[in-house]
Amino acid sequence: MTPSRLEAFSDGVFSIAATLLVLDLHVPQPDGQGLAIGLLRQWPAYAVYAVSFITIGIMWVNHHALFALVRSVDRPLLFLNLLLLLAVAVVPFPTAVLGQYLGSEADSHVAATGYGVVMTACALAWGAIWSYITRDARLLVEHVSLPGARSTLPRFLAGLAFYAIGMGVATLSAPLSLLIYALVAVYYVLPTLPRSAHNAAADGTPRAPTRG
Amino acid sequence: MTPSRLEAFSDGVFSIAATLLVLDLHVPQPDGQGLAIGLLRQWPAYAVYAVSFITIGIMWVNHHALFALVRSVDRPLLFLNLLLLLAVAVVPFPTAVLGQYLGSEADSHVAATGYGVVMTACALAWGAIWSYITRDARLLVEHVSLPGARSTLPRFLAGLAFYAIGMGVATLSAPLSLLIYALVAVYYVLPTLPRSAHNAAADGTPRAPTRG
Amino acid sequence: MTPSRLEAFSDGVFSIAATLLVLDLHVPQPDGQGLAIGLLRQWPAYAVYAVSFITIGIMWVNHHALFALVRSVDRPLLFLNLLLLLAVAVVPFPTAVLGQYLGSEADSHVAATGYGVVMTACALAWGAIWSYITRDARLLVEHVSLPGARSTLPRFLAGLAFYAIGMGVATLSAPLSLLIYALVAVYYVLPTLPRSAHNAAADGTPRAPTRG
Amino acid sequence: MTPSRLEAFSDGVFSIAATLLVLDLHVPQPDGQGLAIGLLRQWPAYAVYAVSFITIGIMWVNHHALFALVRSVDRPLLFLNLLLLLAVAVVPFPTAVLGQYLGSEADSHVAATGYGVVMTACALAWGAIWSYITRDARLLVEHVSLPGARSTLPRFLAGLAFYAIGMGVATLSAPLSLLIYALVAVYYVLPTLPRSAHNAAADGTPRAPTRG
Repeated sequence: MTPSRLEAFSDGVFSIAATLLVLDLHVPQPDGQGLAIGLLRQWPAYAVYAVSFITIGIMWVNHHALFALVRSVDRPLLFLNLLLLLAVAVVPFPTAVLGQYLGSEADSHVAATGYGVVMTACALAWGAIWSYITRDARLLVEHVSLPGARSTLPRFLAGLAFYAIGMGVATLSAPLSLLIYALVAVYYVLPTLPRSAHNAAADGTPRAPTRG
Repeated sequence: MTPSRLEAFSDGVFSIAATLLVLDLHVPQPDGQGLAIGLLRQWPAYAVYAVSFITIGIMWVNHHALFALVRSVDRPLLFLNLLLLLAVAVVPFPTAVLGQYLGSEADSHVAATGYGVVMTACALAWGAIWSYITRDARLLVEHVSLPGARSTLPRFLAGLAFYAIGMGVATLSAPLSLLIYALVAVYYVLPTLPRSAHNAAADGTPRAPTRG
Repeated sequence: MTPSRLEAFSDGVFSIAATLLVLDLHVPQPDGQGLAIGLLRQWPAYAVYAVSFITIGIMWVNHHALFALVRSVDRPLLFLNLLLLLAVAVVPFPTAVLGQYLGSEADSHVAATGYGVVMTACALAWGAIWSYITRDARLLVEHVSLPGARSTLPRFLAGLAFYAIGMGVATLSAPLSLLIYALVAVYYVLPTLPRSAHNAAADGTPRAPTRG
Repeated sequence: MTPSRLEAFSDGVFSIAATLLVLDLHVPQPDGQGLAIGLLRQWPAYAVYAVSFITIGIMWVNHHALFALVRSVDRPLLFLNLLLLLAVAVVPFPTAVLGQYLGSEADSHVAATGYGVVMTACALAWGAIWSYITRDARLLVEHVSLPGARSTLPRFLAGLAFYAIGMGVATLSAPLSLLIYALVAVYYVLPTLPRSAHNAAADGTPRAPTRG
């Protein structure tokens, strides 16, 4: 199986999960305080929506960057990718929970922890996929060096540490915890993968693998 | 019509059906017991979500593997594929039912049977598609032998037997029934189709059809 | 703009509209009569679901067959296609209405008429698209003869007559009306377009335009 | 990264956001006045649905026209595109709010302003994307002249002025405001981009950049 096949289904799941997030925003029902108040009171839902959308969008960008380095896809990799997609597809659920409970005094920490659990599942799936791919050179495209590819694994696993901090902070302040989750997304905007292949994919001129 | 056309629409339905499953998970409403209890009490919904997502994901993988062996698509095959997609697209419904009723003493067996009925419809559609394709060599790609292709039909139909067992067990224990449905998905992770073509598609080097 | 661009977005709308139909099926709430009764009582929703899914699926098949005859897409055609997609994307709404009201004595005819109105809008959009494409030979692929292409317009417009009959029957019996809508879908399973191009697309061997 | 990658995910978000709009239409519940009255009373929801669907559809058409002029996509452009998609994906929410509140005496102006805010966010994202792309010739395809490309920026920003007028009018009449939003969509049906490249993409014959 070529990566393009796998990417068609993955593209679908990423874009649908991101777009379904909007269903977590609810039309305020008339309550005597007016629509403007009703809309503004939902600010936590908007904030969580934005963080989840950006997170899924950046995961999608990185998914493509990663599979641009993959030559062929075997059954275990398909299955690991399916686990990643399962975690991504579930994101609208903790988003809805956190959006509704971010302002709750009693339960905001539970909601923020739950959000972190799903994000940690995503990070674990990313780490498992990259560990599996870089087990040997069999699945990688030719111009990526195996040591270079392996050396990027810590950046994949860094997400786990960040999310652990986010979940720890959740017991103190759920909004602060959401801010940390947002920063993880920003962190992964920066390229995580071997540079040479990146550039080759970006400008169309394949180069010799310099460092990976 | 070439298979790639049919696959674009099928990819869409598979990935949307899988991602829509998340709408079956509901934000617990404040009930005095706290959000953590509310979230944990929904474990049946999470379990059924995971089984349905993995099942649809594996059906998608096998859909591609199957249509990689198909040279051209005629109207009856299009229509059979549409019936398969109809059954796949309906999966979020029995998933929602079983997720809500798995813990119900009176109705869990009905919910688990209903889930099995939809899965059986999927398995019937798979069997019908493969029977139709292997009727003669007209629709198959050249390097697949017809007897080899036909010899894999029992593996397609095995799902029917498993689902029948699952529905039989549903009257005893719905969770056990769900476990059996999950095992069917795992069973179909293993390749069901003629090997030679698989390898050819995977590593790009077409081989002579050895056994099919 | 090439047709493939337009088809990517159209594929998306067709497959999402078809898959969203499942949200019209609701988990029966416990009401003392048991889940089995609750599920069976929803048979109208299942029937309408099946008719809508098959109708959208067949429209998708015919959309591809049609745009396989189109060489290039201009702005008016893009806009007409957008109107078709608008009508297709709205199908889950009359489906939900008819699914809920098919058994209602007072309102089933209104629901069945509303379903027919949306289907008529689809049929009008199809007719407008084909009329526009066959205005002159500018947008058609070369091996399709303009008179041959024009001669198929009545088959496009036949849907309008059928849907008018369906809406007329709606005042007598909504289920009978639904049956007529289902028959229109079956009618459009048969190829509506110039044959030569069809065969050429199907078996890969381009032929001389015989009749169009 | 090539534009085609980015377009696959964008196509997904555009088509899903457009198709999810249908979930803003609700089945009228029996209220003694009959289904026909119930359906007709929802006319504001239908009107807003149509405006939003057409707006998203035209944004999609223009998205393709724009990225047909782009040679390669870098990280900042990816991120700007993600912000556009975030705004597009949120459209079903103000659509639902305006559909429900368009007839409300007290709150229709708030709902119409909220709709304008999201549309303004879309227009800002479009402007940012085109400003970034035309910063220098690095990202543009070769046959587009940079001055020509830059000269079209005002047409991108015109949307901002229109939406400001629409939001201003919202305090007087929400339906009039909706009409203005609809006219913006119609305005963007006309080509906004350098013509030469357009024609080249449309009829397949690349021409010399005449004016841009």
